[in-house]
Amino acid sequence: MSDTFQPTYGLVPPEVAATLSGVEFMQGLLAGTYPAPPFAETTGLWPVSVEAGKIVFEAMPSKRFYNPMGAVHGGWISLLIDTVMGCAVHSSLKAGQAYTTIEMKTTFVRPVFESTGKLRCEGLLLHSGSRTASSEGKIFDGNGRLVAHGSETCLIMDVQKKTAA
Amino acid sequence: MSDTFQPTYGLVPPEVAATLSGVEFMQGLLAGTYPAPPFAETTGLWPVSVEAGKIVFEAMPSKRFYNPMGAVHGGWISLLIDTVMGCAVHSSLKAGQAYTTIEMKTTFVRPVFESTGKLRCEGLLLHSGSRTASSEGKIFDGNGRLVAHGSETCLIMDVQKKTAA
Amino acid sequence: MSDTFQPTYGLVPPEVAATLSGVEFMQGLLAGTYPAPPFAETTGLWPVSVEAGKIVFEAMPSKRFYNPMGAVHGGWISLLIDTVMGCAVHSSLKAGQAYTTIEMKTTFVRPVFESTGKLRCEGLLLHSGSRTASSEGKIFDGNGRLVAHGSETCLIMDVQKKTAA
Amino acid sequence: MSDTFQPTYGLVPPEVAATLSGVEFMQGLLAGTYPAPPFAETTGLWPVSVEAGKIVFEAMPSKRFYNPMGAVHGGWISLLIDTVMGCAVHSSLKAGQAYTTIEMKTTFVRPVFESTGKLRCEGLLLHSGSRTASSEGKIFDGNGRLVAHGSETCLIMDVQKKTAA
Repeated sequence: MSDTFQPTYGLVPPEVAATLSGVEFMQGLLAGTYPAPPFAETTGLWPVSVEAGKIVFEAMPSKRFYNPMGAVHGGWISLLIDTVMGCAVHSSLKAGQAYTTIEMKTTFVRPVFESTGKLRCEGLLLHSGSRTASSEGKIFDGNGRLVAHGSETCLIMDVQKKTAA
Repeated sequence: MSDTFQPTYGLVPPEVAATLSGVEFMQGLLAGTYPAPPFAETTGLWPVSVEAGKIVFEAMPSKRFYNPMGAVHGGWISLLIDTVMGCAVHSSLKAGQAYTTIEMKTTFVRPVFESTGKLRCEGLLLHSGSRTASSEGKIFDGNGRLVAHGSETCLIMDVQKKTAA
Repeated sequence: MSDTFQPTYGLVPPEVAATLSGVEFMQGLLAGTYPAPPFAETTGLWPVSVEAGKIVFEAMPSKRFYNPMGAVHGGWISLLIDTVMGCAVHSSLKAGQAYTTIEMKTTFVRPVFESTGKLRCEGLLLHSGSRTASSEGKIFDGNGRLVAHGSETCLIMDVQKKTAA
Repeated sequence: MSDTFQPTYGLVPPEVAATLSGVEFMQGLLAGTYPAPPFAETTGLWPVSVEAGKIVFEAMPSKRFYNPMGAVHGGWISLLIDTVMGCAVHSSLKAGQAYTTIEMKTTFVRPVFESTGKLRCEGLLLHSGSRTASSEGKIFDGNGRLVAHGSETCLIMDVQKKTAA
């Protein structure tokens, strides 16, 4: 976990979240005004930068995520890149809008070990429409080398109408 | 966690793994002969069936994986489906072969909550070539409804030549 | 082109299409009641079977689609598999509904040449929701060997509300 | 078709292609030194810029590619983006290397009509390894608005060893 970011974990009440734009919500997470979501504790991710449509998280690879081959499970990489791609969409929403992820793809270009050290993961909004939005993600190691890249599509909803896709 | 499957966690020594076919390796994990990989403890997945090219895992959704919207993070779903898709490829390998996942896609068709209960995740080998293999995955809830589906591609290597893609 | 299927090419007037369910529309294309879409002439595809949620097309690989390496361009394979995956969704719609494809993925597992001969391409609906639907596709050669597989997601709309995603 | 680019169509003999780096090969196509591949004639694409790892094509949407809904078939968009993503990988290869595309994904963000006019499609190499390479593609309309984006993975081979994946 980051030295400087010491969140509490929990959920923001939906009636509070509904009054916030996406970037207000996410900047509140970053500032510690709102509790960090539970998955962030389990998986070791934390945000370092939030703008509308552009998100950066960091994450620390750990032996806790090793697969039988002795490397970090690609599923953890996918979880990390899904996080920033979803947050890039979230950060572009107006108050009263919500999103759900329809699909995601991850391409793995370098193996990750605990010794790889802290990863930087960037999510970037590519398209924002009235009903769908799409984003891309890129993960870099400490030397700036690309570790993984991905894309995803989200469905945009008015909170009042939020139901299963 | 399953009532009947109580694994220890750790890594199988590479020199042992290299003598086993993929299906022998995975059936040894299922039988508890070999330790389960560390990620399985962190993420709450366990295998229930292993055949060459066909794998079933179960997993229990938990609030530990909740996103800020109060549902299970899609990244955890991706980790689960990546696991069975990778294992479906692994289970088709001969002794002395290894694999690395090149890319994966997940499509999310229903939201998952802790109340959804135990998920069943099936991985199926679709193609096995000398240099690449591909597989598909499907996740079902307890009522047999599709929750997510996916596909992935792996690179097949002789263990002696195993290096980064 | 098929010996038995000799379509005319053109577009069905939207006001006619709006009165038909997806499977009625597609069976009308198959029967020649409605003109085949223009792309079908350009790319050499034709339907052979239409049920709600399950579609089969055939297509003949041609040197017209060769890439610089002297094999059929993967893009033509993608066009073929997108066709059946989209039609599988289309065939599940009610009168007054329309769809637009949000994203697609193709995995190529065998190269295709003119000498490969006629391909069989199957599209299968996997999920049908109120706002999105997803499907998978598989292409086989004349010996029943898998040539490519894919998946796609579509947005479902009422015709009256049809706009850009 | 472009006013200035009037290619002949055909295949470059493999023994000639094997002596050229990817960027030499592709710049020869652009210059008209080598014949354009057959698919380019059928589908209306032409290259406008070739650097190692960065490719631009243009293409003209046509009613010849219309689907039954009266818009350009997404499969044609996929063919276009696959072309530039594959060429971005090709342009990074050394003499004696070849590639084959393993998989591709396209995300469609705006519908395309004949009236949309000329499209610009950019392919960019993201990763180049000894056995795989990956790239991304983006398509823009004449107003610089994003129409589609995608990614793909290719297998890299020595020409002598070129076989099916």
